[in-house]
Amino acid sequence: MTTKRAATMKDVAREAGVALGTVSKVINGIPVSEPNRIKVEKAIEALHYEVNTYARGLKTQRSNLVALIIPNTHNPFFASFADHIGAALYKRGLKLLLCCADGIPEKEIDHLNMAMNNKVDGVIALTYSDIGKYITNNLPIVVFDRFFENQVIPRVASDNFAGGCLAIEKLLEFGCKHPVYIRFHSVFPGESDKRRDGYLHACAKYGLEPNYLDMVDCDEKIDHMKRFLDRHKNPDGTLRFDGVFAHTDYHGYLFMSLLQREGYRVPEDVQIIGFDGICKFGNIEEELFVSSICQPLEPLAEKCVEILLAQETQTVPSLTLLPVTYRYGGTTKES
Amino acid sequence: MTTKRAATMKDVAREAGVALGTVSKVINGIPVSEPNRIKVEKAIEALHYEVNTYARGLKTQRSNLVALIIPNTHNPFFASFADHIGAALYKRGLKLLLCCADGIPEKEIDHLNMAMNNKVDGVIALTYSDIGKYITNNLPIVVFDRFFENQVIPRVASDNFAGGCLAIEKLLEFGCKHPVYIRFHSVFPGESDKRRDGYLHACAKYGLEPNYLDMVDCDEKIDHMKRFLDRHKNPDGTLRFDGVFAHTDYHGYLFMSLLQREGYRVPEDVQIIGFDGICKFGNIEEELFVSSICQPLEPLAEKCVEILLAQETQTVPSLTLLPVTYRYGGTTKES
Repeated sequence: MTTKRAATMKDVAREAGVALGTVSKVINGIPVSEPNRIKVEKAIEALHYEVNTYARGLKTQRSNLVALIIPNTHNPFFASFADHIGAALYKRGLKLLLCCADGIPEKEIDHLNMAMNNKVDGVIALTYSDIGKYITNNLPIVVFDRFFENQVIPRVASDNFAGGCLAIEKLLEFGCKHPVYIRFHSVFPGESDKRRDGYLHACAKYGLEPNYLDMVDCDEKIDHMKRFLDRHKNPDGTLRFDGVFAHTDYHGYLFMSLLQREGYRVPEDVQIIGFDGICKFGNIEEELFVSSICQPLEPLAEKCVEILLAQETQTVPSLTLLPVTYRYGGTTKES
Repeated sequence: MTTKRAATMKDVAREAGVALGTVSKVINGIPVSEPNRIKVEKAIEALHYEVNTYARGLKTQRSNLVALIIPNTHNPFFASFADHIGAALYKRGLKLLLCCADGIPEKEIDHLNMAMNNKVDGVIALTYSDIGKYITNNLPIVVFDRFFENQVIPRVASDNFAGGCLAIEKLLEFGCKHPVYIRFHSVFPGESDKRRDGYLHACAKYGLEPNYLDMVDCDEKIDHMKRFLDRHKNPDGTLRFDGVFAHTDYHGYLFMSLLQREGYRVPEDVQIIGFDGICKFGNIEEELFVSSICQPLEPLAEKCVEILLAQETQTVPSLTLLPVTYRYGGTTKES
């Protein structure tokens, strides 16, 4: 069985006998010579080349620009999210205005106004401020992950509650008897707080005594982890827990390093499951830092864009949750 | 000694008795009520608040948009570079149009035309195609890292040649007698090829026999590394090299993992120095994957933007190289 390959811009250039750049210009509405324009249009027709259909449902006077407000792209989670958002926009003929605001409300608002000044068609935000009140003229907006007081603005997130449950279920499945939970959290409420709810739910469901380190994020994470570890040592040096659900892969990695420095083996003595699904070296290296509950970054980005462009906003739910999955990353005992 | 803190947008809002968003709007030229505009302007004057000075030297009809064309932001090196470019633009009142082209020439050209259609004021590109010929109307452009046939376009890169030398010098300083070089390279020529030249120069300078694995990048990197390793084993299992200069941190990490799987200790049996200076978890975690020759990402980004905005293009050198530095990352024996 053979499937006919869809024509590419290159095919159009070959068919029309013009340079690739000429085809791109015609498609993007940049003037070229009249004979070339005609050649390209004929080739597009002959090959049934599908030009990116420009997004509908936005303002009529469009810039085809969508602003993404995120803290930074140093963090690999945000960096991959930005990449997937860009790809989801690109295939709809839209461009990405990247606004890294370092989580500083002042900078977020400034970026937002700069973006509005450039007449962006919409905003996707992973933000720490209630930016809804700064947005005027019915600009479409979608918020990722963060909790937002303004319920009118649609939100997209992973199913963090189910992820918290799944982490504990996996640790039990791999033989843990006494899992603990470790998290350092933002002062801003967000969907990720539900990981804790999921953890507590799983404890109740499986008859486990909740046991956790739960603190506001700070620079002394290692010190707090060390004290938590010391509090759970038996006189013979063995530990009173055998599994860790870490709030993020980063927390899981820090705790793993601490355990190894203290002479404990991972996963033999303690199994660890993190959250996020961050890969070493980004997508180049498929290896996770720790076994993890993975957020579906590509579908999350696609969903944000889809909702942003939705024509019938009445049918958009205020909160859309996408399922998470467990993935092995070397810190669990697979059965 | 006390230094007077520079006034922030928040201070202006407090002084003017208006909301932060109002200040931002005035600064960004978005209409507000006349009394509010006057209040804000008075407060700006009273506090000597420094409004971002908008970049000069660009077209008079400005969009204040600069396009960055890079392969992706999954790769932490590109991701951090994009972040620093955004920061360098932001402080000049410019915005970042992020174009991830996956290194596909067709997509790069398409992004470029989309960007020109949005009347960007300039382009910074880490590209694999000779996009110079697609750029019309004297659009300012700066190229990072890649080699470019068109010498008119200014390029910015790290001093890769010096970095290659430095890696060998550091390995020798830490006691290596037989360093080898491992690289998998792109089919496209680029500044990073000079790491190899630097390695060969150091070999000549220090009387070392060049010994390397040098191949076009492929999916079978581990297999090739394994064969290279096997070729360098003595009958008793010891190795005929004791140091590795890896073309990138990623290559260094892969080789370290292979060595450890084969029962060799890093850095006791083999010391490794990579190139790039990529940190685990981006900037959250300051820990490197391997000891590394670090590229100065923030200065590189700053330099790209500075050259892009330079008014007197005659004085811009065709190639600007910034110095690299060695940093310990656990895979070398510090003396």
